[in-house]
Amino acid sequence: MTRPSFAARETYLTELQELLRIPSVSCDPGAEKHMRRAAEWLAGRLSGFRGRVIETAGHPVVMGEWPAPAGAPTLLVYGHYDVQPAGDEARWTSPPFAPEVRDGRIHARGASDDKGPMLVPVMVAREWLACGGPPVGLRFLFEGEEEIGSPSLEAVLREHRDELAADMVISADGAMWRADEPSLTVAAKGLVALTLEVRGPACDLHSGRHGGAVVNPLQSLAAILASLHQPDGTVAVDGFADGIEPLTADERAELARVAFDEQSYRASVGVSALGGEPGYSVLERLWTRPTLEINGVAGGSATTVIPAIATAHLSCRLVPAQDPERVVAAMRAHIAARVPDGVTATLDERAGSTPAYRIDPDHPGLAAAELALRQVYPDREPLRVRMGGTLPAATLFQRVLGLQIVFFSFSTGDERFHAPDEFFRLQRLWDGLDAWARLWELLAGPEALSGRAR
Amino acid sequence: MTRPSFAARETYLTELQELLRIPSVSCDPGAEKHMRRAAEWLAGRLSGFRGRVIETAGHPVVMGEWPAPAGAPTLLVYGHYDVQPAGDEARWTSPPFAPEVRDGRIHARGASDDKGPMLVPVMVAREWLACGGPPVGLRFLFEGEEEIGSPSLEAVLREHRDELAADMVISADGAMWRADEPSLTVAAKGLVALTLEVRGPACDLHSGRHGGAVVNPLQSLAAILASLHQPDGTVAVDGFADGIEPLTADERAELARVAFDEQSYRASVGVSALGGEPGYSVLERLWTRPTLEINGVAGGSATTVIPAIATAHLSCRLVPAQDPERVVAAMRAHIAARVPDGVTATLDERAGSTPAYRIDPDHPGLAAAELALRQVYPDREPLRVRMGGTLPAATLFQRVLGLQIVFFSFSTGDERFHAPDEFFRLQRLWDGLDAWARLWELLAGPEALSGRAR
Repeated sequence: MTRPSFAARETYLTELQELLRIPSVSCDPGAEKHMRRAAEWLAGRLSGFRGRVIETAGHPVVMGEWPAPAGAPTLLVYGHYDVQPAGDEARWTSPPFAPEVRDGRIHARGASDDKGPMLVPVMVAREWLACGGPPVGLRFLFEGEEEIGSPSLEAVLREHRDELAADMVISADGAMWRADEPSLTVAAKGLVALTLEVRGPACDLHSGRHGGAVVNPLQSLAAILASLHQPDGTVAVDGFADGIEPLTADERAELARVAFDEQSYRASVGVSALGGEPGYSVLERLWTRPTLEINGVAGGSATTVIPAIATAHLSCRLVPAQDPERVVAAMRAHIAARVPDGVTATLDERAGSTPAYRIDPDHPGLAAAELALRQVYPDREPLRVRMGGTLPAATLFQRVLGLQIVFFSFSTGDERFHAPDEFFRLQRLWDGLDAWARLWELLAGPEALSGRAR
Repeated sequence: MTRPSFAARETYLTELQELLRIPSVSCDPGAEKHMRRAAEWLAGRLSGFRGRVIETAGHPVVMGEWPAPAGAPTLLVYGHYDVQPAGDEARWTSPPFAPEVRDGRIHARGASDDKGPMLVPVMVAREWLACGGPPVGLRFLFEGEEEIGSPSLEAVLREHRDELAADMVISADGAMWRADEPSLTVAAKGLVALTLEVRGPACDLHSGRHGGAVVNPLQSLAAILASLHQPDGTVAVDGFADGIEPLTADERAELARVAFDEQSYRASVGVSALGGEPGYSVLERLWTRPTLEINGVAGGSATTVIPAIATAHLSCRLVPAQDPERVVAAMRAHIAARVPDGVTATLDERAGSTPAYRIDPDHPGLAAAELALRQVYPDREPLRVRMGGTLPAATLFQRVLGLQIVFFSFSTGDERFHAPDEFFRLQRLWDGLDAWARLWELLAGPEALSGRAR
């Protein structure tokens, strides 16, 4: 059993371009035929692995498999073939669904998120087939609804639980920290999304005729929203942060290893100063502290009215000790205590509440992935990084199948996903092929799952 | 000189219907020909008074005049022939521009605001022409832009200052308090409208990736908005209420004479409790206290973003001691002190700032108007009422021509102006004819302008 050499770069590129030409925009109601075409194309790429299109209540998933050689583990390989809408095509240098290579980068919608990274393990599996077959058992699961919140994924995992039995999930989705710093995402925040509606008079009132006597829902809403944080930026909701342990010295040291230039971060988001909780570094705030953000507020207009209704959309990002239900209850109690007479308030939890994700720091998949990265990037010690964002699929695999997930995507956070001119670095494609092959090889070794590979 | 008897009710009604059929919607860009037709129709009604259409930068005004008999004062009669849009015509019982009489009410857009009330002095003048001519000097000024903020009125007053020379303004616009309680509006609040924009990051950011470190403009805006009031409803802006004298015992007594049922007011606006400053009755809050209302807030969306921009529209209603410029300066200072690092805020004063209006309580026009109301409604003592709303025209006449204004409209606040099924009570039309004729007669007497008529 020899690791493949991945010499057929032209072929890989041609295949990626084929897939990128299919506008598989999952949120587009007219895209059904494109979704199916992309799924069938992908199943065709997995023909040596019993590749097949599986129906769901929404867009189909693509599954494939390879039996585990004796003594080797089975990996569930996850990714998604759907993409975000292109947005305003005039803002693209080349058309979003006509992939173009410029300066070592392939530009197209989905190049980085997630068609390029997703094809890496497919290509690795195919090449390894020519060398006698992959050294590990494989279960492929590629969905077509990641960009719309994976509404069918839980049902798929439940219905195909036996076919998907594996030792761990390796995700081809989830970007690395930076192109020049190999990294593994070991934690992501959970999410609770809430809508707060404050209602006052039965209809919008003339603010001159009624101002001063009728309680203004926008004023009540502003007071409630302002009460959610201390002036120093700390969340002021009783019970919100219950159970969260302070960062350990080891955790702080691990985070301190990640180079983070505050000035260039400020410049990248376009602000002159940062905010947030005192006592934490910026990276600690971004990655390890729960947050509560006001995402949207709407009510009234520029005309002189007292509006009948004022609405705010809120979201909380949770860290591992937080339970979404308890966070919602804490928010509910905080708000209920601050609704003045004359208005009413309702707080609705929106769909998609997700607890935080964190992989066991001693997980053998993580150790093998670090070793593979060290082999591919010998001059760079891989970092363990976290995400302020949320990975609903990660907690789903953990909850439904009991599997932990290793994020091993070769896209990076700067590749303009969800934006015009999305691109994927070709060097990262070549690196990814090598790294995935090495990862499988490492995990195939009898010592891998015992954790000694680290 | 005998006061006319106003027996030709069919004729008055026919004339009003003719005018109501013209859709003179001043905010409608396609209504220019209707505006002109309405103006020409109106000038035609004033043919005995040198009625003429005068061009402005916007819609034309209609002017007319009658020389003052020896020793008699000259009255500038104001009203407007433009109307609000009809809105959703499906919500009208009869079409908005096909006037229909039902149950003693004429229903049409503009019936109450202001075509019906405006035609009253026109009809009075014409009838008096048949009896030898009005007993007072008259200057008619009817504009076609009241519903869009009277943008040309100031220029008209300045350019025609000499032709418009008069002793006082009698306005056919400005509704009475209630149909069964004759009243005179003696004060209206001023207005300052502001737009507050808080800017943070250069573009909307992912609230997971950046939450906790980037200052959220919506959160900063909420804190600023919440700071504008004390928890008890009092405006908390330093300097906002500078110079306002407490209500005198006489003023409180005058207001206490106005029957105001708090429970039916609450029911009419659809709230279970009222708010506002402690120490004042509801009517005192509505009519005599300055207010600061949040009219609209917009920013972000239901998606998980930290928005780049958050905007609030605010309006302040001012009482006579307040200077709009000082109020703006107080707001500016209050807000500037509350903008955290990481965001910037701009406060723009929108067009149309207006100081409060208040007629001299001893003005002879007011005294004559009260006497006329007592004669028409002998069983009801007329009330002196105030408005929480703003009358920009009133302060304009005062500022440009130095004239005080007596509001003598026979519409009432419940006649659905600006809404579907607007109507005007025919009895109020007949009452108005009688009252205006009496008012002129009273003001023609040599004792009227000395104030002894009261």
